[in-house]
Amino acid sequence: MIRVVIIGSGNVAQHLIKAFAKSSIIEIVQAFSRNKENLTNLIDSSKIATDLNALIDADLYIISVSDNAIAEVSHQLKVENKLVVHTSGSIDMIDLDNKNPKGVFYPLQTFSKNAAVNFDVIPICLEAENIEDYKLLETVAKSISDKVFNINSNQRKALHVSAVFVNNFVNHLYKIGNDICKENNIPFEILQPLIQETANKITSLSPNEAQTGPAKRNDSQTINSHLQFLTDENQKEIYKILTKSIIDNGKKL
Amino acid sequence: MIRVVIIGSGNVAQHLIKAFAKSSIIEIVQAFSRNKENLTNLIDSSKIATDLNALIDADLYIISVSDNAIAEVSHQLKVENKLVVHTSGSIDMIDLDNKNPKGVFYPLQTFSKNAAVNFDVIPICLEAENIEDYKLLETVAKSISDKVFNINSNQRKALHVSAVFVNNFVNHLYKIGNDICKENNIPFEILQPLIQETANKITSLSPNEAQTGPAKRNDSQTINSHLQFLTDENQKEIYKILTKSIIDNGKKL
Repeated sequence: MIRVVIIGSGNVAQHLIKAFAKSSIIEIVQAFSRNKENLTNLIDSSKIATDLNALIDADLYIISVSDNAIAEVSHQLKVENKLVVHTSGSIDMIDLDNKNPKGVFYPLQTFSKNAAVNFDVIPICLEAENIEDYKLLETVAKSISDKVFNINSNQRKALHVSAVFVNNFVNHLYKIGNDICKENNIPFEILQPLIQETANKITSLSPNEAQTGPAKRNDSQTINSHLQFLTDENQKEIYKILTKSIIDNGKKL
Repeated sequence: MIRVVIIGSGNVAQHLIKAFAKSSIIEIVQAFSRNKENLTNLIDSSKIATDLNALIDADLYIISVSDNAIAEVSHQLKVENKLVVHTSGSIDMIDLDNKNPKGVFYPLQTFSKNAAVNFDVIPICLEAENIEDYKLLETVAKSISDKVFNINSNQRKALHVSAVFVNNFVNHLYKIGNDICKENNIPFEILQPLIQETANKITSLSPNEAQTGPAKRNDSQTINSHLQFLTDENQKEIYKILTKSIIDNGKKL
């Protein structure tokens, strides 16, 4: 069994604990949480450490805390010459403390505390300083997911920026659609099938091939009529710049 | 049987012909296409008219042509005192010619010629000048879809603007994510589960509840690092205004 210590008790840490519990090759020997109650429904109370100095021996230490605490936590660890990884999309591997070999174990997904997650299909992006450690991470990752990728820190940063566009910003566009519907007494459920189809379409077409709409057709009459309809300044600006970007993209082809 | 004439041979017209063919209460008595070959694989050749003056008697005439041709086609129709509807999200009902009772039969979906469509789950938005005509449209719509809504022209305009945000603009954000991945040799498939999860999440949470990311947390360090990473001017502007809009929205709550 590969002995793993999980440091942290947030969404990602909790989902990892659940996924590892199902793996036949991983033993979670300990989890760290300043507040024991965060983890008591997931792991035996005797395995929860509330003091970073009390961590026991393991093959792999996974730091899954907020981005701005990762470097500090890696510095505070008393273990040495053990593989230490973080789970963040936006922190460089080299930001981890030098006393331990470093790596990254980044599951690319949006985790909510209560929503169930099927880890099989969640891509896990791995990075390590040396090949032995990479192989260990790969074994661990493949025991919970079918989609494991070797992604260096530069690529991970690009991936994180992309994820902001296709997740955070997309969700905000859903919110704007929802707001416009509300103001006009239209049930938002009318838009749900379109939203699902938009996401499904790009599994068989490239986003470029899938593009439709007034901006793609450079239909200035419809575009102007929509801009007149919008009264919220942010909505207007978002409409303008996305329309410009779609039109500019058409010119490049 | 309700006798229907379809005028047009584009994506929406073709998908309607296929859906109506499966309905037990609708008979497509004729379809109009300037170019007969557009429809010969969907409907018996003898039922295809290539001359607008040759349309036969029916209960319902559905004009499914490009937005800027709808008014002109309704004007050219020789039939009188027959229910004539269009299928557009952005054209007012009153733009149809006055010699016939008017209505709208708007299936809210993004149609691609080759992608198969399950009409059962596509919302159909209906409008009519009088209640008798509305009931006819409702009967026709319910024979092909489980989701039928009464939506007036003002609401349909709001819906169309919303659809631009949640479909056209969302797809363009997918494209930007794809472009950033390509430039950094990252397979776009890594982002697919995140894209699907983002769309699925709002079937159980409101978009407002589902929002995550650096803008939602007002994490200026990550935001600035992402803006430094981006080199394309349009991408930078899109990042800035969407971030501003998410932050402003947080202040309102």
